[in-house]
Amino acid sequence: MVTMKDVADRAEVSIATVSFVVNGTKRVTEATRERVEAAMRELGFARNPIGAALARGRTRILAMLFPALERPLSLTASAFFTSASRRARHRGYDLVMWPIGNDAEQIAVLARSGLVDGVLLMEVQLEDPRVAALVEHKVEFAMIGRTADPSALPYVDIDMSSSVEAAYAQLIAEGHEDIAFLASASPAYDHALVWRAMRAYREVTERHGHPTTLIACDEMPGDGRRIGERFAADYPDTTAVIILNEHAAPGLVAGLTHAGLDVPADVSLVSLGSSAYMAEMTEPQLTYMRTPGTELGELGLDALVDRLEDTQGPLPQVLLPCELVPGGTVAAAGPRRTPRRA
Amino acid sequence: MVTMKDVADRAEVSIATVSFVVNGTKRVTEATRERVEAAMRELGFARNPIGAALARGRTRILAMLFPALERPLSLTASAFFTSASRRARHRGYDLVMWPIGNDAEQIAVLARSGLVDGVLLMEVQLEDPRVAALVEHKVEFAMIGRTADPSALPYVDIDMSSSVEAAYAQLIAEGHEDIAFLASASPAYDHALVWRAMRAYREVTERHGHPTTLIACDEMPGDGRRIGERFAADYPDTTAVIILNEHAAPGLVAGLTHAGLDVPADVSLVSLGSSAYMAEMTEPQLTYMRTPGTELGELGLDALVDRLEDTQGPLPQVLLPCELVPGGTVAAAGPRRTPRRA
Repeated sequence: MVTMKDVADRAEVSIATVSFVVNGTKRVTEATRERVEAAMRELGFARNPIGAALARGRTRILAMLFPALERPLSLTASAFFTSASRRARHRGYDLVMWPIGNDAEQIAVLARSGLVDGVLLMEVQLEDPRVAALVEHKVEFAMIGRTADPSALPYVDIDMSSSVEAAYAQLIAEGHEDIAFLASASPAYDHALVWRAMRAYREVTERHGHPTTLIACDEMPGDGRRIGERFAADYPDTTAVIILNEHAAPGLVAGLTHAGLDVPADVSLVSLGSSAYMAEMTEPQLTYMRTPGTELGELGLDALVDRLEDTQGPLPQVLLPCELVPGGTVAAAGPRRTPRRA
Repeated sequence: MVTMKDVADRAEVSIATVSFVVNGTKRVTEATRERVEAAMRELGFARNPIGAALARGRTRILAMLFPALERPLSLTASAFFTSASRRARHRGYDLVMWPIGNDAEQIAVLARSGLVDGVLLMEVQLEDPRVAALVEHKVEFAMIGRTADPSALPYVDIDMSSSVEAAYAQLIAEGHEDIAFLASASPAYDHALVWRAMRAYREVTERHGHPTTLIACDEMPGDGRRIGERFAADYPDTTAVIILNEHAAPGLVAGLTHAGLDVPADVSLVSLGSSAYMAEMTEPQLTYMRTPGTELGELGLDALVDRLEDTQGPLPQVLLPCELVPGGTVAAAGPRRTPRRA
């Protein structure tokens, strides 16, 4: 059995320092932490024997909560998990994904189990029952997303207002006026991000005195496709669409193409909150606003661990905008041509 | 504090039966289990107080291992997690995703922690260091996938040989002879499924005396796109492609279209191991062979729980084929036309 003393000798630090690293009870420099962790690895020191971990009330395991029972992860959500997991490992924790969505009862089970030190919330809703349950059960957490009133809560999130403004400005600059907003429709899920985006869209259309055209779409390429196929008939005056639904965007391009509309000559598209992965699937490639998924995954993990290690520290509240990545789906507004085979 | 006696009274069963359900020590009928679990829910019975769980050596938590630190989950992998999680909940367990790839050391940490009762392995490699580590540390597991010699191991997997045969037969029937096979290239990962698929492809081409054309492609739409753009020059005689890389398939269609090749008039495509989600992104829609992800997730979870609850039972070993779903990307072989803008 390898002891903390063995690790301390190998890393040439005090036993107290090893204990700080193992238990997360006090901060040490990155260099020291790395030396101690290298020694632990080399000696095969079992950092997490559960009895000891529970005795000190720490397991160094964190849970990312995602409603995976209700719906599959998008590539973007998966990128959050990957970057947060890497960051967790770097800070001496393990992050696991726990499939809990809109379910306060499951939070209670998780809290009572004592298995995790803290929780990272994904897919935050305006009124999220998980937040109340976490507060009630005194589980430390941070949100990737924001509830309706997040002023007293730790979060990192997309700055949706400025991102919608930027997408809209891009299209206005090309002479578009009837710019629709296609958002995820998820009846089971009152997604705070979508709500904030629609509010920002309404504000910007009002400010410009332009039409407000809202399109709801399931989070499936097939639904984007169906909207594309009927687009000429359903939205005869609309020349551009901002799409906040990365799943539907390639399907929308396919549907428009199938119906004989040219992207971007007939309809310009900006995919808001997407990635190179989705953008490269279509011809032409999507013009998109990149979700800062890697950054938010890391910052969210840091927000949680900072809270765990220093509950008196400043409340982490970070907003990052989506960044515009030009593709081939935005062009100057012109008269809509008659579809070739609509 | 709600006791087992309270639950037994509410469910109108014996305390022993409640204990069987809570501890998984003996099977009960589905109807009885559901009655007991309903009573537990109604009374707020905490099934998983960790102290008691550890005292009896069971946490009723299972881990799905996926190399999420190395790469994001595909939608297909996410579907495995969703269906296995649902099935776990149904059988009275919680399934979490633990990001462990090609790393025996992390398995040792997980095993020593005592936190999980069993493990479901994703992305199985031909020689998978995780399998040896799980055996060494006496952790029950089941594989979704197969190592090189899985004869003594519990698994569920895609029947890749018959699936490749079916995809090939579909194209042969349309008169194609030079049928390429585009597979995932992942230098860090010796994926057993890809290896078995390529072996089956080599066998079927040899049997027919047709050319063997292997194309390696990163698991990104952009790489499929680049291959599509150069296709006419690089594979002048190839009239059809079987694609075992769901990420690349839509990009390949986009790249071929961009280069002026018509799908399917110039190049027929069958996407092997894919889903409606990916198929509906392209114009025309992809002809694909569906990964039985939901079924394999459930069967894999059942294989694991069956092993946990009856270690003397039969060894679960299940193969399911992919099922052909017609789309618009297969047509009769003809002379390749000159690309319009290659």
